[in-house]
Amino acid sequence: MRSITSLDELRSSRLSLDGTVGLAPTMGFLHEGHLSLIRRARDECDHVVVSIFVNPTQFGANEDLSKYPRDIERDLKLIEPLTDLVWMPTAEIMYPQGYQTWVEVEAIASPLEGTMRPGHFKGVTTVVAKLFNGVQPHKAYFGQKDAQQAAVIRQMVRDLNFPIEIVVCPIVREADGLAMSSRNVYLDPEQRKAATGLFRSLSAAKDLYENGERNAEKIRRKMKDVLADEPLAKVQYVSCADYDTLEELDAINGKALLSMAVFIGKTRLIDNFVLG
Amino acid sequence: MRSITSLDELRSSRLSLDGTVGLAPTMGFLHEGHLSLIRRARDECDHVVVSIFVNPTQFGANEDLSKYPRDIERDLKLIEPLTDLVWMPTAEIMYPQGYQTWVEVEAIASPLEGTMRPGHFKGVTTVVAKLFNGVQPHKAYFGQKDAQQAAVIRQMVRDLNFPIEIVVCPIVREADGLAMSSRNVYLDPEQRKAATGLFRSLSAAKDLYENGERNAEKIRRKMKDVLADEPLAKVQYVSCADYDTLEELDAINGKALLSMAVFIGKTRLIDNFVLG
Repeated sequence: MRSITSLDELRSSRLSLDGTVGLAPTMGFLHEGHLSLIRRARDECDHVVVSIFVNPTQFGANEDLSKYPRDIERDLKLIEPLTDLVWMPTAEIMYPQGYQTWVEVEAIASPLEGTMRPGHFKGVTTVVAKLFNGVQPHKAYFGQKDAQQAAVIRQMVRDLNFPIEIVVCPIVREADGLAMSSRNVYLDPEQRKAATGLFRSLSAAKDLYENGERNAEKIRRKMKDVLADEPLAKVQYVSCADYDTLEELDAINGKALLSMAVFIGKTRLIDNFVLG
Repeated sequence: MRSITSLDELRSSRLSLDGTVGLAPTMGFLHEGHLSLIRRARDECDHVVVSIFVNPTQFGANEDLSKYPRDIERDLKLIEPLTDLVWMPTAEIMYPQGYQTWVEVEAIASPLEGTMRPGHFKGVTTVVAKLFNGVQPHKAYFGQKDAQQAAVIRQMVRDLNFPIEIVVCPIVREADGLAMSSRNVYLDPEQRKAATGLFRSLSAAKDLYENGERNAEKIRRKMKDVLADEPLAKVQYVSCADYDTLEELDAINGKALLSMAVFIGKTRLIDNFVLG
């Protein structure tokens, strides 16, 4: 595995990769969710590139950029057997003095995370465009845990004609259902228990749906009710939305996305299920 | 020369081009300026791709989109001997139902044309990003006549890590100095004469500079004075700006861009000289 920093090194290393290239973009502090992307890339492509970059432009002013967990040594050990090239640019390489170009997706980026984290997706789409142009992969791998992010990136790829296939991999969960996230490390033992509320809430809503409920408001209420039983959980939003547009539904007729953002203490967690 | 419309055809045709690819993006109604780009691409690259697309998103509501001159048959004849592939997408291909992604460059796109044509460069950078991702050229050729456009695109390429070299080719002029432009066809014979005022104004300013004048306001005043002698010319702006930032100068110390936008009747013309 070759580990590189500068764009020039990336360009010349990329030229030496014949055949298909798969990219797994990450912010590091890797867990089984990330590794599932990288393994899938390993299965499907001749070469695997992993990027590790905690992208400052996708964090809001009051978010956790400065304390975002990092452990590069551990990350490199984990990906070594699976990866040809790891790109770890600095913030100065990605956003040098005078940087002034932004990629922005509109409608699909505006509800849910887009409402709660203004500017977040503008940072995401901009950095992903830069990663795509830097690495020039044939396929890029994203996790379904960030369901809206995956939808926003698919939209960007389609709209801007990127010649890249976006592969979205299933959420990887802990034994008790908690979706894997680098941010889970923020949770103390009591909070860690409470964090299972997201999975239980989504599961209860899914049960309702599978028993025939199609009223989206009742589904949302069920999610809220389960979370209300968890004193450490503070709901930011729960959503039952059209899978393609992410617009809130009245009635579930086709594919739907159940999603939520919940604070457990100061830690903001997200999770989702797809229905239909 | 292969002529294609859809993105799928473009993708498969592009795969058949071995070696280096040069792209000349145009809006058609080609003149010697365009042909100079295409010839340069022919000289420097193994294959030449020309795009012809009158991009609606770079025209303002009160601009000349609907009457922009077109003559595809003539265009194709002109480029045939020089071109491997011509891509002529429709507006529906470039901006299908639900299109919602934009690429925007900030500071360098804000003065001059950016002030006079709000949204213009957002349309330009978005369509050029799409052309770049569609064609995946090694080099792309632009004309110095649109000096700010070239600067904006260079900035976009640098910021978004496009692996593309931007080549800017000199302005091609008529015998009397008028910069070639598809829009010159709008001019009646009297206006056509008056249109030489832009070149005479720039030339007079350059003479001043070459005689030692470094006061930018005096340079701008000279440009205005010459244009004031032309009753059919209505100045929109004249500028003496830093070549790199396009900020207006007080004193000329390094490389500078003299530029102007002038209405001759209803036809808006631009032109520029580089000093230093």
